[in-house]
Amino acid sequence: MPMNLTESRRQFLRQAGLGAAAAALAGPAAAATLAQPLSAAMQHDDKKKLGWAIVGLGKFATEQIMPNFKDCQHSKLVALVSGSPDKAKKLAREYGIEEKNLYNYQNFDTIRDNPAVDIVYIILPNALHAEYTVRAAQAGKHVLCEKPMATSEEDCQKMIDASKKAGKKLMIAYRCQYEPFNLNAIERIKKGELGKLKVITADHGRPVKPTEDKADTWRVVKKLAGGGSLMDIGIYSLNATRYLTGEEPVEITAQEHSDKSDPRFKEVEDTIVFTLRFPSGVLATCTSSYSYQEVKRGRAFGDKGWLDLDPLSDYNKHTMKIGTEEGKQEPQLKEGNQFAAEVDHMSECVMQNKTPRTPGEEGQRDVRYIMAIYEAAKKGKAVKV
Amino acid sequence: MPMNLTESRRQFLRQAGLGAAAAALAGPAAAATLAQPLSAAMQHDDKKKLGWAIVGLGKFATEQIMPNFKDCQHSKLVALVSGSPDKAKKLAREYGIEEKNLYNYQNFDTIRDNPAVDIVYIILPNALHAEYTVRAAQAGKHVLCEKPMATSEEDCQKMIDASKKAGKKLMIAYRCQYEPFNLNAIERIKKGELGKLKVITADHGRPVKPTEDKADTWRVVKKLAGGGSLMDIGIYSLNATRYLTGEEPVEITAQEHSDKSDPRFKEVEDTIVFTLRFPSGVLATCTSSYSYQEVKRGRAFGDKGWLDLDPLSDYNKHTMKIGTEEGKQEPQLKEGNQFAAEVDHMSECVMQNKTPRTPGEEGQRDVRYIMAIYEAAKKGKAVKV
Repeated sequence: MPMNLTESRRQFLRQAGLGAAAAALAGPAAAATLAQPLSAAMQHDDKKKLGWAIVGLGKFATEQIMPNFKDCQHSKLVALVSGSPDKAKKLAREYGIEEKNLYNYQNFDTIRDNPAVDIVYIILPNALHAEYTVRAAQAGKHVLCEKPMATSEEDCQKMIDASKKAGKKLMIAYRCQYEPFNLNAIERIKKGELGKLKVITADHGRPVKPTEDKADTWRVVKKLAGGGSLMDIGIYSLNATRYLTGEEPVEITAQEHSDKSDPRFKEVEDTIVFTLRFPSGVLATCTSSYSYQEVKRGRAFGDKGWLDLDPLSDYNKHTMKIGTEEGKQEPQLKEGNQFAAEVDHMSECVMQNKTPRTPGEEGQRDVRYIMAIYEAAKKGKAVKV
Repeated sequence: MPMNLTESRRQFLRQAGLGAAAAALAGPAAAATLAQPLSAAMQHDDKKKLGWAIVGLGKFATEQIMPNFKDCQHSKLVALVSGSPDKAKKLAREYGIEEKNLYNYQNFDTIRDNPAVDIVYIILPNALHAEYTVRAAQAGKHVLCEKPMATSEEDCQKMIDASKKAGKKLMIAYRCQYEPFNLNAIERIKKGELGKLKVITADHGRPVKPTEDKADTWRVVKKLAGGGSLMDIGIYSLNATRYLTGEEPVEITAQEHSDKSDPRFKEVEDTIVFTLRFPSGVLATCTSSYSYQEVKRGRAFGDKGWLDLDPLSDYNKHTMKIGTEEGKQEPQLKEGNQFAAEVDHMSECVMQNKTPRTPGEEGQRDVRYIMAIYEAAKKGKAVKV
């Protein structure tokens, strides 16, 4: 793993999060050694932002992720990786990115020699996540990877292993877990505002338009997407059941329907519904579809009340409604920049050598459950997970 | 079957709905005979309302059904059947019911000799529906029976058979199918306002309080209720999936959870979630619980939009919301008296010799699906129905 001085300083700064305790464990000599690089790092205080490379310049990257770096405290956009040099150059000019920091998929691995890049954000079709995460880790970079993490549990494991081997962080981009309304909902449920949690319902869907929208083309190709609506949007329903309960499911049932005469659904599923059982007894029902008009909602039912998020997983304009015996209320929460929060969380984890709140293992679990959902639908039986 | 003159006239009036066609088929002589009783019946024009007996004077009967007879065009309350003579007498005075028209469960069968009673409305604990429907039919009365129709499919069949044998109508009290918001939703879906229907979701629950509310005592006793929340309130979710799609399910999955340390759930289930597949490919997810605070909602998802009813199955204050690509709207529909509409529909069916919109067979289907839901939950497999 090549590492120049700047890189080693930055690395040290990140590990400094361990602080006095680590120093104490290592003895006075180690504590003395610790002092010096920290001072050196302080010289970079004006550059507290870590450098990010975006891999894949599709609609989501260019319209959601890149513009939101402006709100980041600890992250700055410094490199782009794309198969379209013209597009990359245009965006580089727009975002003030040096042309030497533009890569394509062939020379991507040389990013290892670029100390300006600390973290690589993979925003490629699902089936490519594994390859590029592994290559990024091997190039000595930390990785934030879009969800679904990969198209098989084995690929997820390869990604986790590669990052571990490289001593680098791996985080999966579950933006809802960095979004204020969702975080507030989790907090309220934990505090018992709904009483004992009983059921979660979540519905996610959108009309996939592979012929009209270039961003959708790969989504209906199994070898790129890995699956259909469940991989793409139903995963929000699935993940929400997990972070709202704070539990892992133990048993899954499912039913699927796709109109095979619709060319969009020759390879991937359209609509799939599933139910999950959690250890505490909480049950969940979820729906996922490529045929709905935009739907992104969820509800938690407790024995003292329910809490709605609708939308639950939009880019903005979330609403929360709560119903209890006393009536209904709509808490007025402040919308937050979930993209900036997510990206900054990763930077902070790198800086402070902490495990991200949504690490590779989190992504792997969803992929495991997704596979169980497909299996339950196919076999017509409840699948234990 | 004893029948005095008044009864025979009324009977004839009901059958007169067949009108000229029946007369023509029977030949001129029959047509001539037809004319006379019709004229006789006309003398009763001021009494166009059929006479109803309520069996079971619980909370639902006394607070919802009985007060709403005032809005009926074709139905009047003339008799009560109760195990509490004092309660019956008090209510009789309140509703102007003659004391000779009060029955108990022992002398119930003598109702056959009471020509004032045309239709008997069974509002007893679920497990008693079969016995009293059969006894009412054998007493020559038409029957409206609360849902769930019975606690086994076999009992449903006995009820259907008894009514057929007696030549009497049997209807199940699916009030939502007589409720304006639901009827409007069915109409909109049929007309294609949501495009091709994809998914139905429905959630129903309420906190069962057997020790605090006398009306709930029997609901947690298996031999009276037949089951838990699914029999009582989840049936609204189930039935809604059927009337909103206009289809019968073909495959069912389910998961159940009940805290067995809660004395309420020693015999019957608390929470049960289930999914249904319909022949057109529509899928449904439903939840049912005795732990929720009052929830009675449903949504239909089509490929052009969604339609919410929340509440879907309340006694009043329904709301409808529709979301399409063009935005959201909230159609302002007129609330209607679903109880009066339901009761009058039955009277009209009797008067016009028509099959009720929700006949015994409709109730039997739900009981069949309920049993399949229990089976799917128990066996952890999709059950074909």
